[in-house]
Amino acid sequence: MIKSIVLIGSGNVATRLGMALKHSGFKIIQVYSPDIKHANMLARKLRAKSCTILNDIYTEADLYLIAIKDDAIKSVAQQLRTKVSGKIVAHTSGSVSIDILKGVSKNTGVFYPLQTFSKDREIDIKKVPFCIEANNKKTEKLLFELACSISTNVNRINSEQRNVLHVAAVFACNFSNHLFSISEKILKDRKISFDMLKPLIHETVHKIDSHSPAEMQTGPAKRKDKNTINAHLEFLKTNPEYQKIYALLSNSIENSL
Amino acid sequence: MIKSIVLIGSGNVATRLGMALKHSGFKIIQVYSPDIKHANMLARKLRAKSCTILNDIYTEADLYLIAIKDDAIKSVAQQLRTKVSGKIVAHTSGSVSIDILKGVSKNTGVFYPLQTFSKDREIDIKKVPFCIEANNKKTEKLLFELACSISTNVNRINSEQRNVLHVAAVFACNFSNHLFSISEKILKDRKISFDMLKPLIHETVHKIDSHSPAEMQTGPAKRKDKNTINAHLEFLKTNPEYQKIYALLSNSIENSL
Repeated sequence: MIKSIVLIGSGNVATRLGMALKHSGFKIIQVYSPDIKHANMLARKLRAKSCTILNDIYTEADLYLIAIKDDAIKSVAQQLRTKVSGKIVAHTSGSVSIDILKGVSKNTGVFYPLQTFSKDREIDIKKVPFCIEANNKKTEKLLFELACSISTNVNRINSEQRNVLHVAAVFACNFSNHLFSISEKILKDRKISFDMLKPLIHETVHKIDSHSPAEMQTGPAKRKDKNTINAHLEFLKTNPEYQKIYALLSNSIENSL
Repeated sequence: MIKSIVLIGSGNVATRLGMALKHSGFKIIQVYSPDIKHANMLARKLRAKSCTILNDIYTEADLYLIAIKDDAIKSVAQQLRTKVSGKIVAHTSGSVSIDILKGVSKNTGVFYPLQTFSKDREIDIKKVPFCIEANNKKTEKLLFELACSISTNVNRINSEQRNVLHVAAVFACNFSNHLFSISEKILKDRKISFDMLKPLIHETVHKIDSHSPAEMQTGPAKRKDKNTINAHLEFLKTNPEYQKIYALLSNSIENSL
């Protein structure tokens, strides 16, 4: 059973996971960050010790949870190698394969919360989908149980599936947020408040709780309303980029009908 | 003051507006629809009379509210012409100019609820932004007051601004919904449930209540993470359309930084 945890990282994910795990009774014994301020700040919150050098990492924890930037995982994991060989080493990244931890320990895994974490927004961690993967059944079981102690939405997801989820999340979240930005920009340029659209955006999203988005598609492209589409393209002619996005997405909607 | 209303139309918008107005104490005296079943069904709900021929429209109402498909407004309005000359005639469309009602009556206007209405979803009409426009101050005031009796979010919006809102709404709602569909499709093809992404989508949208979406942008394009972008484009190679959308939107995000 996992009881004690060393947290590698001090950013949003490390903070949210550390707090949730502590709250569920796990002992965070140490926080590592190369930045002494960050290490101390999170360590204080978690009543843990802090360290800024990987060589000072405690060797007695059950789990080493690596919650740092994707491109730093490999190097940090390799530095842990000799210290944690029998323990569980897991990273929290959505897009990095479990293979990056190969050889670091006998027991490796992924403990990925599929959510966007911001400093100034509280999130109900119980509803966050966790994606669990491990290099052996025992480790998978332990990480799965750990996730179940803080969330009601825990899933076995291998690296390939995690990659698919990541691509899909880019469409559903990063790109839709960018469309909100474009929409805000179009309104701002004519001194109209983006607030006007928020009820409509909220309703668009609430609908997908109970319906497939494909079934709920509305708008000029769905109605094949060429007059409106052409009028909108004409309106957008001062911004070729927006015009191109409008044409491509309208076309894609028509192709999907 | 507007007291009695004839409702032209029996679809989602006519139904929601009719119910809300009745609930606020206005008298819907008649419902018109060419389809006798639809006319009767809504009339029953509103305790109104029904009619299926424009010639049978009562002439004594204060307001004739036209809530029908965009391309039918002109013809229906012209048929009302001789019967309603002193009364207020308003349509509920987002993309049709007020000018379409020119000559139909001395008093014309637009009474546009900026929301998407579905048959099987209740909506809190109080939060729906109403866009009001009229061809004279008195009519504007009367329509404004009417909207205020059912919503707390009432705005004076001319036809040009309404058009801008409509373009912006296509980006923010129709297109983002289509991205949700693409996302669902990508997951479905690999037997992963779209439910996995819903908490993330909800959080993406909740963030815009308190922050500008431009400030909240995240993801590979925002991080200029070429490795991930290229891996995703490679993953999407079997679907050139999705690949094109991914490339164009990633590019647009990078251009906006």
